[in-house]
Amino acid sequence: MAKTVTAKAHTNIALVKYWGKKDADLMLPQNGSISLTLDHFYTQTSVTFATQLTADEIEFNGQRLTAQKAARISQFLDLVRQQSGQTAYAKVVTENHVPTSAGLASSASGFAALAGAASRAAGLQLDLTDLSRLARRGSGSATRSIFGGFVEWHAGHDDASSYAEVLQDPVDWDIQMIAVVLKATQKPISSTAGMARVVQTSPYYPAWVQTAEADLKRMRQAIAARDLQQVGQIAETNAMRMHALNLSAEPAFNYFTAETLTAIQAVTDLRSQGVNCYYTLDAGPNVKIICAGQDTDVIKTALQQYFEPEQLIVAKPGPGITITEN
Amino acid sequence: MAKTVTAKAHTNIALVKYWGKKDADLMLPQNGSISLTLDHFYTQTSVTFATQLTADEIEFNGQRLTAQKAARISQFLDLVRQQSGQTAYAKVVTENHVPTSAGLASSASGFAALAGAASRAAGLQLDLTDLSRLARRGSGSATRSIFGGFVEWHAGHDDASSYAEVLQDPVDWDIQMIAVVLKATQKPISSTAGMARVVQTSPYYPAWVQTAEADLKRMRQAIAARDLQQVGQIAETNAMRMHALNLSAEPAFNYFTAETLTAIQAVTDLRSQGVNCYYTLDAGPNVKIICAGQDTDVIKTALQQYFEPEQLIVAKPGPGITITEN
Repeated sequence: MAKTVTAKAHTNIALVKYWGKKDADLMLPQNGSISLTLDHFYTQTSVTFATQLTADEIEFNGQRLTAQKAARISQFLDLVRQQSGQTAYAKVVTENHVPTSAGLASSASGFAALAGAASRAAGLQLDLTDLSRLARRGSGSATRSIFGGFVEWHAGHDDASSYAEVLQDPVDWDIQMIAVVLKATQKPISSTAGMARVVQTSPYYPAWVQTAEADLKRMRQAIAARDLQQVGQIAETNAMRMHALNLSAEPAFNYFTAETLTAIQAVTDLRSQGVNCYYTLDAGPNVKIICAGQDTDVIKTALQQYFEPEQLIVAKPGPGITITEN
Repeated sequence: MAKTVTAKAHTNIALVKYWGKKDADLMLPQNGSISLTLDHFYTQTSVTFATQLTADEIEFNGQRLTAQKAARISQFLDLVRQQSGQTAYAKVVTENHVPTSAGLASSASGFAALAGAASRAAGLQLDLTDLSRLARRGSGSATRSIFGGFVEWHAGHDDASSYAEVLQDPVDWDIQMIAVVLKATQKPISSTAGMARVVQTSPYYPAWVQTAEADLKRMRQAIAARDLQQVGQIAETNAMRMHALNLSAEPAFNYFTAETLTAIQAVTDLRSQGVNCYYTLDAGPNVKIICAGQDTDVIKTALQQYFEPEQLIVAKPGPGITITEN
């Protein structure tokens, strides 16, 4: 009888961003990245390979996905079948606890959980490093969601050298993020298409790749020193330089909405009042605030001038993937 | 008896932007720029040097300026006195017909008119090229406001080589701008301080300077060919790359407001509906739409979904400076 394997993986928010592929097939990034895995947002996925199936069956939050939407997942399952020798189709049941397509990186936790569940269900016993390599093939940011806490994804130059590892498990460090979840709007462009346009058309892109190298070095030091101010400043500048790339593409695009500008200004104002907080943004309008847990109340109170309480979600550092065989 | 000289100069909007000084004393820019002088916005300034004055007296829109606000103008008058041998203080009366500090470049028409009136009143007879050199010392963009139509400011490497000249007087070309004048907000940073921060801290700045060279060449060709689409596309990309620099500075800043994003989206939407229009932005929230006169109605109608009719000002190509002795 076919075994069912369930994996749970958390999303992560990059502090030094991945933005641009060097190799789209192998999903090798142009530059390394560093992230913090968050406890609040996660995906739980169960996979069963069963010989009686005549196609992969993908269920997402209780809904059967159409073949078109399931294609990216089936392609990933093909890779797992190829690596394991497993020949059966799979039943995949996914519960996603991340707002999708809002720059909260649901594909990060999604493909991390899928990699964990599918590889084990197919009979592979991968260590976490190999699991991060496998997750990378589904979605770049998924590479980092295999691990908890602060994680670095080494860009590498081939499949073997492009993987993630833990930099620090921030136990006893009062660092967190507050996600400001803004009105869902249609994205102007997907992150895959956006970063491809940037790599092809932005005259600033080579300088971005160089700067990322320096940011990685400084971020590693700041995390090792548990220096929240340095972590925040480097992350904020790095994020805005990623968004600057989008403005500099041809044609230009940007993920900011009016609410994004409001949230950025609110964080800047708080900082000028002495509150130690910084913002970062991904491929969507949402703003994530890097801060200490002790400042949660003052930050939430200030932001509630502009946003509803339920738009402000406190997220603590989260754990790495867990995999269980049922 | 002292003579009074009156000069009238129009503002200009850069299509290839000036953003960054190479020499702040001589006001030499890092890169050349190309602009269109507009008929709608102008400054008229009268200057009289009179031995009985004990200080420069500056009147701006009917108000006597405080010594602090007048300092930049007095410094410019010192330069004129130095070049002319004139020793008296001056009475300056300025009427400004440009919304100030809103990215509509009131300093461009302002220092162009002041250069024209003050130099003649002081006894100098400068040709327009020399007048553009003089205006440059007051404000970089004023260099271009000496001339009408399409104007190029050559960056140069010293005072003699940094001047403006006419590229084309667009008579019989149905090109224009519609200025979308947005709610006046406090600028996050002056253009002088903003560009200085960019030059010092943006890793993208060297690529900007290189790109500007290519944009100048393409823009000259597009203007010579009277190709509105090319002019608009080059201008739009160039403007967004200037604003990308601001996002990439440390600390990052930006001049966009919620209304700016709305206006940009409206122009992008119009274009996707087949209307040939493009946007450009300077150091402020306002958006200027590059378009043909024949499309004025369709563009104004679309923008009136978001803005009041009086916020939409049609500006045709404008003339160069006029100087009259009273």
